Amino acid sequence: MEEREDKLYFNSDYLAGCHEKILNRLYETNLIKAPGYGTDSFTLSAKKKVLEACGLTEGDVYFLVGGTQTNDTVISTILRPYEGVIAADTAHIATHEAGIIEVHGHKVLTLPHIEGKIYPAQIREYMVHFHADGNNAHMVQPRLVYLSQPTEFGTLYSLEELEDIRDICNEYKLSLYIDGARLAYALACPKNDVSLSDLARLCDVFYIGGTKCGALFGEAVVIPQKGNFSFSPTIIKQHGALLAKGKALGVQFDTLFTDDLYFQIGEHGIKMAEKIRSGLKEKGYPFAIGSPTNQIFILMKKEDVERIQDRVELTHWDNPDETHSIMRICTGWATTEEDVKKLLMIL
Amino acid sequence: MEEREDKLYFNSDYLAGCHEKILNRLYETNLIKAPGYGTDSFTLSAKKKVLEACGLTEGDVYFLVGGTQTNDTVISTILRPYEGVIAADTAHIATHEAGIIEVHGHKVLTLPHIEGKIYPAQIREYMVHFHADGNNAHMVQPRLVYLSQPTEFGTLYSLEELEDIRDICNEYKLSLYIDGARLAYALACPKNDVSLSDLARLCDVFYIGGTKCGALFGEAVVIPQKGNFSFSPTIIKQHGALLAKGKALGVQFDTLFTDDLYFQIGEHGIKMAEKIRSGLKEKGYPFAIGSPTNQIFILMKKEDVERIQDRVELTHWDNPDETHSIMRICTGWATTEEDVKKLLMIL
Amino acid sequence: MEEREDKLYFNSDYLAGCHEKILNRLYETNLIKAPGYGTDSFTLSAKKKVLEACGLTEGDVYFLVGGTQTNDTVISTILRPYEGVIAADTAHIATHEAGIIEVHGHKVLTLPHIEGKIYPAQIREYMVHFHADGNNAHMVQPRLVYLSQPTEFGTLYSLEELEDIRDICNEYKLSLYIDGARLAYALACPKNDVSLSDLARLCDVFYIGGTKCGALFGEAVVIPQKGNFSFSPTIIKQHGALLAKGKALGVQFDTLFTDDLYFQIGEHGIKMAEKIRSGLKEKGYPFAIGSPTNQIFILMKKEDVERIQDRVELTHWDNPDETHSIMRICTGWATTEEDVKKLLMIL
Amino acid sequence: MEEREDKLYFNSDYLAGCHEKILNRLYETNLIKAPGYGTDSFTLSAKKKVLEACGLTEGDVYFLVGGTQTNDTVISTILRPYEGVIAADTAHIATHEAGIIEVHGHKVLTLPHIEGKIYPAQIREYMVHFHADGNNAHMVQPRLVYLSQPTEFGTLYSLEELEDIRDICNEYKLSLYIDGARLAYALACPKNDVSLSDLARLCDVFYIGGTKCGALFGEAVVIPQKGNFSFSPTIIKQHGALLAKGKALGVQFDTLFTDDLYFQIGEHGIKMAEKIRSGLKEKGYPFAIGSPTNQIFILMKKEDVERIQDRVELTHWDNPDETHSIMRICTGWATTEEDVKKLLMIL
Repeated sequence: MEEREDKLYFNSDYLAGCHEKILNRLYETNLIKAPGYGTDSFTLSAKKKVLEACGLTEGDVYFLVGGTQTNDTVISTILRPYEGVIAADTAHIATHEAGIIEVHGHKVLTLPHIEGKIYPAQIREYMVHFHADGNNAHMVQPRLVYLSQPTEFGTLYSLEELEDIRDICNEYKLSLYIDGARLAYALACPKNDVSLSDLARLCDVFYIGGTKCGALFGEAVVIPQKGNFSFSPTIIKQHGALLAKGKALGVQFDTLFTDDLYFQIGEHGIKMAEKIRSGLKEKGYPFAIGSPTNQIFILMKKEDVERIQDRVELTHWDNPDETHSIMRICTGWATTEEDVKKLLMIL
Repeated sequence: MEEREDKLYFNSDYLAGCHEKILNRLYETNLIKAPGYGTDSFTLSAKKKVLEACGLTEGDVYFLVGGTQTNDTVISTILRPYEGVIAADTAHIATHEAGIIEVHGHKVLTLPHIEGKIYPAQIREYMVHFHADGNNAHMVQPRLVYLSQPTEFGTLYSLEELEDIRDICNEYKLSLYIDGARLAYALACPKNDVSLSDLARLCDVFYIGGTKCGALFGEAVVIPQKGNFSFSPTIIKQHGALLAKGKALGVQFDTLFTDDLYFQIGEHGIKMAEKIRSGLKEKGYPFAIGSPTNQIFILMKKEDVERIQDRVELTHWDNPDETHSIMRICTGWATTEEDVKKLLMIL
Repeated sequence: MEEREDKLYFNSDYLAGCHEKILNRLYETNLIKAPGYGTDSFTLSAKKKVLEACGLTEGDVYFLVGGTQTNDTVISTILRPYEGVIAADTAHIATHEAGIIEVHGHKVLTLPHIEGKIYPAQIREYMVHFHADGNNAHMVQPRLVYLSQPTEFGTLYSLEELEDIRDICNEYKLSLYIDGARLAYALACPKNDVSLSDLARLCDVFYIGGTKCGALFGEAVVIPQKGNFSFSPTIIKQHGALLAKGKALGVQFDTLFTDDLYFQIGEHGIKMAEKIRSGLKEKGYPFAIGSPTNQIFILMKKEDVERIQDRVELTHWDNPDETHSIMRICTGWATTEEDVKKLLMIL
Repeated sequence: MEEREDKLYFNSDYLAGCHEKILNRLYETNLIKAPGYGTDSFTLSAKKKVLEACGLTEGDVYFLVGGTQTNDTVISTILRPYEGVIAADTAHIATHEAGIIEVHGHKVLTLPHIEGKIYPAQIREYMVHFHADGNNAHMVQPRLVYLSQPTEFGTLYSLEELEDIRDICNEYKLSLYIDGARLAYALACPKNDVSLSDLARLCDVFYIGGTKCGALFGEAVVIPQKGNFSFSPTIIKQHGALLAKGKALGVQFDTLFTDDLYFQIGEHGIKMAEKIRSGLKEKGYPFAIGSPTNQIFILMKKEDVERIQDRVELTHWDNPDETHSIMRICTGWATTEEDVKKLLMIL
């Protein structure tokens, strides 16, 4: 598929390469010879900065390449073979990872989503029901809750919701893992009240997304309590997720967490999204999903979709009825004000 | 582990970042918005160039991130659950992949290596023995032969050996897969008589290594006969190996296969290795393994190892006896003539 | 849990050992030395009889030990790693097999059940939706439909429903597998219009349940078209399902399919169930599920459940509200008229 | 394969059904309705008797159906995904289980056998070598030692050898698991000095074989320290190894461990083997393997193998050279003195 210079691309947040500062730093450090597999000094520096940004004095950080392998490696590490992970039926691990969780032996126990979220009451009900089931010895044992922040639908968990979910996890001895593929945009969203420190406090493990938030590739898995579970280079290697040239990940995250670059990237993406939302509101486009982050879902008539498709690339999200489509607009670190203006003129 | 500027690093061929041309091209294309997962125009261009370099008019190419996940994804695609892969007991898949082949359900059927290689006669004997075994219905069925070119010991298969192995594979209905993690150096080696076209002709699938041969990361899986087996984005995704920002891989391989850069990288690495070998010969260092490629294995007295360890980083390979070590010296695209001179002065 | 002689047990259909004829035949053949793993003459004879009962002149039959391992072995044989099996959310494979499908790498794609069944329209809708999904390359590919006849809720698929499902499977290139754990009771049910020949005609593979239908243990997997997929002793062995003393399975199924014993067992179980249903109707017990086979589900007030629990063992099925329970009554080959009378006096 | 009444069968120890006492007891208890999955009173009684026979006051016992699924379930329970099991290259799990260990994600780390055994020094050397390997973070971590008593070659470990292996396991934090598929014959062998109590004392888990030692089917997994690892009905179910009609296993093992039946079965098998060995010695047949238990391996000229094959069924074991075969003779609970005499007349 040929990319065209005259076309606007708002179809995802991983279209371009990486933030300029990262590319520069990769350039500067290119010929420095460093040991592999995450033992180099850039990686160690990045780990310290990430822990600091999370308000942690101890703990561990591992850098993997992409979200799918990260989810798989973390989940495979936590779960025994007969254990499963509770998640929304729209969770990335339940839908768009081609069964990577299952191919490593585990079941995803899905709950019906509400705009991409699952609620404390749902999780509690599931656990009560499970424990009351006389056959539960023959069932996959729930052991982990998987949430995304923001969710696949761009929505956010509030601090109160996460604290309630944490309480339920404690009560039922479940671990809590949060997928932060788009975390920068969550953190920068005015409606958000969950900080990195909160995530560090409430989760057993979470990851800070790089690929969609300014890095060329990479995700940072944060384990607040160092010995909590046996995440190690060995299991990361076994999942094909241990990058030989670990320095490449170290340099990127070291840059992202120097001078608040990660947060600025999030703020820029949100700022662009806000402009688009305002413009769309004025034009009278209904929002199909109440997402406040960098994914915007609008209801469009099919003829409008056709009308713009030659000039704007959006992602088709759903067909709510015969005459409408729900389309998704993504912003990110690479979105320019100019492109936003053009988009609002076309829509 | 702090990298030191005054120290020489010859311990592996994935210490530095990537070839300058690749970094420049990543820079130039950084803000171009491209679709993900390998559907972008750079990837398509790279695929064409790779096929051309292999003398193929049809066939398919997929770009994955690293060698371990590549081996796993290819092997998992070819083998049914009860099928196994024949390999040397020193094969990467049998030793340093933390059981990624097994965690995806498959057994590695090892044969004793001779300087990292397995020979046609060994494979034939294994198959004869297997077919004669009255219990073979209860055994893992051999279905694939895995070789590395060069091997983990830096040694090379000759064209004749590969043709013989191909014949045996045809006779016993085995597929043949070659891991080319260091392929550039094999192709450039004067002693080599196996070209990319030969690999395309003889293998069911093979990969052209990028990570160790000038790329920042990446491996190119070549499937000479397009429909030969069901390699697809779905199974690559299921193995966590489908890079979202596929353009990053496309740009790198498009650059590597423009103006013969890949082959020049190989030639440089070999040239540096040759200089080192000559120098070591003069100094009277015995070679522990007959490797003609970019890995050099010398026998050193333990006191010499200690003597140099503060100034030169080599990889400890083995302890043949109480007083000696076998040490490995690696060259690659990033090795400078200056460093080679310094190395020869120290050793 | 001590079994009491004065208590009535109607909690499941695998409480007792096996039909007298089977025990006698095991006795008679006990000292005959036979080769193992299903190559003995009793197994061959049983295979012929089963094929004949299914109206098949060719095809293959394999005897495994239990339903859970049978489902796993069949499903693992059919599915590639990135493929999944469509089933009701109440399917045995989705609920009470402790994740055996997932531990072998596959995902169960559930559809909401209606009294334990899934309907042709639901399957069609799922496939239409899947094919329309722009992300389907990153999703588990549906490849197989799993049904139970009767279902876990005792309900039956009609011939028309199965033919419709077969058509949809053909259209979307899905295989169809039916779990017949309680098949004898389905075949004997007056409301049933699906014969063994129909199953042989419509399914790619199905199993005839032995464990719940008179055998001590054992299930017969029928593959109507011999080469349809690579089911073999090797893959059965790999799933720990290849009984060394194969003769034990051969003798049992040879007996079950001599002189229509299997069908008589089904008829007896249904006859006893009918008596119970009539009696319960008279007493005014509402049926919670419209099951016509050997599982009867009644709505009972919690105080009635307490009242009888010391004299009758039933299975608690569900809590529809605060004051009621749904209880399950099972009949089978071992149910006596006398026990039925006693049950109806107590309830 | 038609069994012939006029032919002698000494090819394996799982040819016939089961010991008469077991069949009688199955008869007597046939119509007793018992709960499933191992919760019935016969199973509880059998567990007590087995623990008692092992000299254990606490601990746990689980009954599974066959050896292959037992090995898989135990090993899968003990090992994390990146951990492997050390075993002889002739171990059942390394050869004749069609890769069941690998399909559940684990690697078998084989050591070269000496008449089917591996020695303490070999295990120690392996662990020393592993810990010295600079790459061991990228390797499968050894975590368990698997031995068979007797071995696949009929040989026995001495108490001293097992105690040494136990010491090494303690030193390197490895668990020890012993496969006792033919354990009755080991216990009865005059050369044996390892009792059930010794196994209970030295192993983390072991199984007492039923299938080859008088039962129709079944193996008893003994876990001397109850909480040692998370073996449970859930994980047994997940491996398709939890027999629904658990009473069938309970009755068998309850009978085997009443009035020393298990030990008598072993003694009978050994007694018959001794007669055969004496006879063969007199006739001048060389023994190919020094097995003292119920498997006898003799060196026969190929023409002798042909001469007898119409009247005696033995197992072909190996082809040591062009003119000889190694043949295996098995005795067991079902071997009669009469058949032994006939065998010795024919050979």
